[in-house]
Amino acid sequence: MAEAGVLYGVGLGPGDPGLITRRAAALIEGAGVIAYPCLAGGASFARSIAAELIPAGAREIRIDVPMTRDRAPAQAAYDAGSAEIADMLEAGADVVALCEGDPLFYGSFMYLQARLAARFRVEIVPGVTSMTACAALAGLPLAARDGVVTVLPATLPDGTLRDRMSGAETVVLMKLGRHLPRIRELLADEGLTGRAHYVARAGLANAACLPLAEAPPVAPYFSMILVARESDPWL
Amino acid sequence: MAEAGVLYGVGLGPGDPGLITRRAAALIEGAGVIAYPCLAGGASFARSIAAELIPAGAREIRIDVPMTRDRAPAQAAYDAGSAEIADMLEAGADVVALCEGDPLFYGSFMYLQARLAARFRVEIVPGVTSMTACAALAGLPLAARDGVVTVLPATLPDGTLRDRMSGAETVVLMKLGRHLPRIRELLADEGLTGRAHYVARAGLANAACLPLAEAPPVAPYFSMILVARESDPWL
Repeated sequence: MAEAGVLYGVGLGPGDPGLITRRAAALIEGAGVIAYPCLAGGASFARSIAAELIPAGAREIRIDVPMTRDRAPAQAAYDAGSAEIADMLEAGADVVALCEGDPLFYGSFMYLQARLAARFRVEIVPGVTSMTACAALAGLPLAARDGVVTVLPATLPDGTLRDRMSGAETVVLMKLGRHLPRIRELLADEGLTGRAHYVARAGLANAACLPLAEAPPVAPYFSMILVARESDPWL
Repeated sequence: MAEAGVLYGVGLGPGDPGLITRRAAALIEGAGVIAYPCLAGGASFARSIAAELIPAGAREIRIDVPMTRDRAPAQAAYDAGSAEIADMLEAGADVVALCEGDPLFYGSFMYLQARLAARFRVEIVPGVTSMTACAALAGLPLAARDGVVTVLPATLPDGTLRDRMSGAETVVLMKLGRHLPRIRELLADEGLTGRAHYVARAGLANAACLPLAEAPPVAPYFSMILVARESDPWL
């Protein structure tokens, strides 16, 4: 019986193929089997980032993840994808699972890891997060010296967000999208609008970076708000 | 008069040259002038990460940063380094400034940006942070779905650390080094030892990854503690 293959969880960075690491690029270029999440029946952002590196003959495992409020369909999709990946690994093939951003920082790879890490060898290749890519685009320090960074999904309820932002220094609000109007009000209430910057699609050609006060009324899914620290006297 | 050059602030990732991005690698390979911080009179970790990519003929600007408690000598070193970089930029040469990890996430590049961004065009290339590299090595999710991440330098006073850790989910304690004994006690007091993992030198050949309870008594400068979230029912 063949030795089982290795599952590689590969971070691709925020969208610009130039922000793929050399290790990730080498794994993709050498891959016999790749796996990636797709919007059910639609495109895969992860695959689009890596497209130019994927070998022509590679076998591709699509994981169609429905974006429903009920989590059961998405979990079933990851169950099915994991079963298909497990078959490949058991047959001795390595599998390269593509993941936007970093695999373990709000990354889709965690759903595969949770299902497969007990049975197979897993190696994770970290990637550039959208958080630091947005900071780079905005030219805003996230933290220096003894600075504190708090990362909050905008999907959390108002009360939780208020509690976590209270007294915080740098705040990163991820997963902004349709929550922009609510977050805008909340930041205004907390007196943080002046320190808040809106960044959308960092690393993509149509990126945007504006003070929150000038942000459009509607935000795309790939957008965030950075609440910068007051200026740092040590810099 | 020549048009001024561009200052590139290039993140190199946590130490493994494989975790350099393709964009960063291309900029370094094409650089006429590179700049990097060194321990005063000693080695440069940033330069060592990128060493194989640096062109033989490149001019190198060393910024000797003294590790003193008083910040004035380090600030004087960045003043002098910035002046040397400014001369190059004014003469029309681009300068590639190397930075461990990500330039804006506890990165040294911020000291150059603060001095030069008003006068010159600056482009920042984000890098893989030690935070996600440590998570990858440990196989520990930092955050999924609506998870919150709090990043705290271990250099902060006990009271501040306690306040910030109270009720937090994932906690990342950066800049551990000589603070390990104090942080170990603090986590024990807060009942967090069981969720705490020690990771040292992620991305280097001599990396270590252990439950905190099994960590050595003394930690190297490049080490951190990840306090993982309770298991996530959605994974």
